[in-house]
Amino acid sequence: MTAISFAILKKSPGMPMRAGKLVTLHGVVETPAFVPVGTQATVKSLTPEDLEKIGVQILFGNTYHLHLRPGEETVEKLGGLGKFMGYTGATMTDSGGFQVFSLARENKRTTLRHSGDERSEDARIKEGSWSSQDDNFGNLVRITEDGVEFKSHLDGSTHFFTPEKSIAIQKKLGADICLSFDDCAPFPVTHEGAKAAMERTHRWAERSLRSHKGLTTENQKQALYGIVQGSVFEDLRKESAAYIGNMDFDGFAIGGVSVGESKEDMVKAVEWAVPLLPEDRVKHLLGVGDVDDIFYAVERGIDTMDCVTPSRLGRVGHVFVGPGEGTMENRFRMDITKATFATDSGPLTHGCDCYACTHFTRGYINHLFRAKEMLGGHLATYHNVYFMVHLVKQIREAILEDRFNDLKEHWLG
Amino acid sequence: MTAISFAILKKSPGMPMRAGKLVTLHGVVETPAFVPVGTQATVKSLTPEDLEKIGVQILFGNTYHLHLRPGEETVEKLGGLGKFMGYTGATMTDSGGFQVFSLARENKRTTLRHSGDERSEDARIKEGSWSSQDDNFGNLVRITEDGVEFKSHLDGSTHFFTPEKSIAIQKKLGADICLSFDDCAPFPVTHEGAKAAMERTHRWAERSLRSHKGLTTENQKQALYGIVQGSVFEDLRKESAAYIGNMDFDGFAIGGVSVGESKEDMVKAVEWAVPLLPEDRVKHLLGVGDVDDIFYAVERGIDTMDCVTPSRLGRVGHVFVGPGEGTMENRFRMDITKATFATDSGPLTHGCDCYACTHFTRGYINHLFRAKEMLGGHLATYHNVYFMVHLVKQIREAILEDRFNDLKEHWLG
Repeated sequence: MTAISFAILKKSPGMPMRAGKLVTLHGVVETPAFVPVGTQATVKSLTPEDLEKIGVQILFGNTYHLHLRPGEETVEKLGGLGKFMGYTGATMTDSGGFQVFSLARENKRTTLRHSGDERSEDARIKEGSWSSQDDNFGNLVRITEDGVEFKSHLDGSTHFFTPEKSIAIQKKLGADICLSFDDCAPFPVTHEGAKAAMERTHRWAERSLRSHKGLTTENQKQALYGIVQGSVFEDLRKESAAYIGNMDFDGFAIGGVSVGESKEDMVKAVEWAVPLLPEDRVKHLLGVGDVDDIFYAVERGIDTMDCVTPSRLGRVGHVFVGPGEGTMENRFRMDITKATFATDSGPLTHGCDCYACTHFTRGYINHLFRAKEMLGGHLATYHNVYFMVHLVKQIREAILEDRFNDLKEHWLG
Repeated sequence: MTAISFAILKKSPGMPMRAGKLVTLHGVVETPAFVPVGTQATVKSLTPEDLEKIGVQILFGNTYHLHLRPGEETVEKLGGLGKFMGYTGATMTDSGGFQVFSLARENKRTTLRHSGDERSEDARIKEGSWSSQDDNFGNLVRITEDGVEFKSHLDGSTHFFTPEKSIAIQKKLGADICLSFDDCAPFPVTHEGAKAAMERTHRWAERSLRSHKGLTTENQKQALYGIVQGSVFEDLRKESAAYIGNMDFDGFAIGGVSVGESKEDMVKAVEWAVPLLPEDRVKHLLGVGDVDDIFYAVERGIDTMDCVTPSRLGRVGHVFVGPGEGTMENRFRMDITKATFATDSGPLTHGCDCYACTHFTRGYINHLFRAKEMLGGHLATYHNVYFMVHLVKQIREAILEDRFNDLKEHWLG
């Protein structure tokens, strides 16, 4: 068999939304599916046993982080990403591109803050005069046609990623699905800057695909997704989707929607791109999202989406809750560390069947956070990942049973 | 039934060593048994499900910490220690005395270090001129006949523990087994200082027992253990064991053996005390121990022992290993964070059946620690608690099958 195959089981009449089945060499992924992120070969605080109990069928690793530590040679030597981390399900890795750009921007901001010059960058970004090509991130990242030179956030050492290097690293990491190397423009960005980044993304997609095919053997089969860019510009998103969609990728990802745009921009990017991508192949949305984002993306034809929020929020005690239990600021989140929960005997959220909700009170989890106990972050993360995975499972069932709109109404009102 | 009952199932001929069965209102504890410590109502990083899988039958909570946070009223309101933390097995709490004294000493040392006066305290301790009564810990702890006034390590607020207060708090915490309030002398200490602390411990034992009986009702049954003190002095240990052993306690604990004495001192304290305590009641050793300590204690008649080392060491990547796998400094420990383990495909220790050893390589766990991932501390803690619990289970089986000496020889050589 090929590395992956994708079958659509149910289509919603007149809509791009569908339920499907992504078959990998490490099991079936029932789509739509939420893909938890295990940046450093671990979904923070969760064991693979936890992931299996939660019902996770696929997870996401970050090539940038794994390349720097422990290095792809170590991961390869210990069996590849899945085996390395003791996870038997399907895995996917990103190209490292997004991380290089976004971590570099974070470093830049730190550098500038120290030099007292932060406002000028923000001001330039706000007026749209900044793009990934006219600013090389204060020399922390140097972009050329060949690739990107960057400094490690761990030790400042210099590294150079090219499409070929990214694919070679991903081959060693050995996930079921790899992503082509892209130039992810920052946001806001001018049309000119977004167009240049998109065109480079297309040239890098050609090189990624060529490199991928050259390295694929009988014993090493992986799928490769192409990435659609184009920022918030309709013409560019459509041009990119048509271009990338016309290439021989096993699936597609929509990138650049989580770097600062509004929810509306994300929705539009999906809406513009999906119809121009081959219907029969799987579509992934990178770095999304919130409860409402997931409904909006799925109804526009997205099959899988990854996001770090369940673990990132869980670690600090922000837990997902169902309709009517959230706060004014975010109706699907609650800060369990607040004193008001100290003697609350209810579960994190009502009706949740996860281990944390069925075994512990809000009061106990509140205590764990206030006492700085690791178990607090673990239980909140467990709940959050379960919550997202099961939300998308519910959406899938609703699509299969033609009641997506009812479910959406229940959640979003 | 009474709160606990204890039956000796097997005695070793001519030795105080035995295997038994401690029946509590929350299940049977097969003795000898290792009692993991859940200071703040959590054995750090482990879920109750982990504890059950590991085979933990009883765990230990700290009254001092739980009184300060979240407070015994909160624990009581949420069902008592076991229910609060979602653990269905047996539980025991200490009196808070040891914590008050030892945390105060730590604070004192910090205070003195800042004032540049640390050496003088250490010097006094070394020459044996320091005792718990002639030094009130720089006013952080004030000991009177009535009880101990101390400042919280969390916020500096002032608290006052008496035997009656300790018992009242422990009643609210609701563990199956409580400990009487004692005066734990520091080490080293003069004979005079140790004698004074012991005599106060005896008076406080009378008050603890009286208070305990007064608060025991049909609906609130708990067991109370008396504590033997006496430091490193044979006459005092024997006097204390005879005194406490003559009182109507449900079981006994030997205290003050983990505050700085040598292994030999611990062994002697047990050897002197056990024969003077009623044979038919359970005997607990407080704050022990290492692999060898456990063999030495059990063969001298100890039934249960608690220790924080499995989780304290696990958190920083020190994992327990079997004979022949340790280091020169400690033959039963290994530092998994060392670079030498980066690509090691073996388990933490060979022959271990725990989840960490059967699912992950040393290389992966090494990576988790180097990448500062929570899962590293979790897996190492899981392994360490499993290791200790199963070591003591093996010892129990060996006693039942008359092959204790062979097992001891295998482990200690």
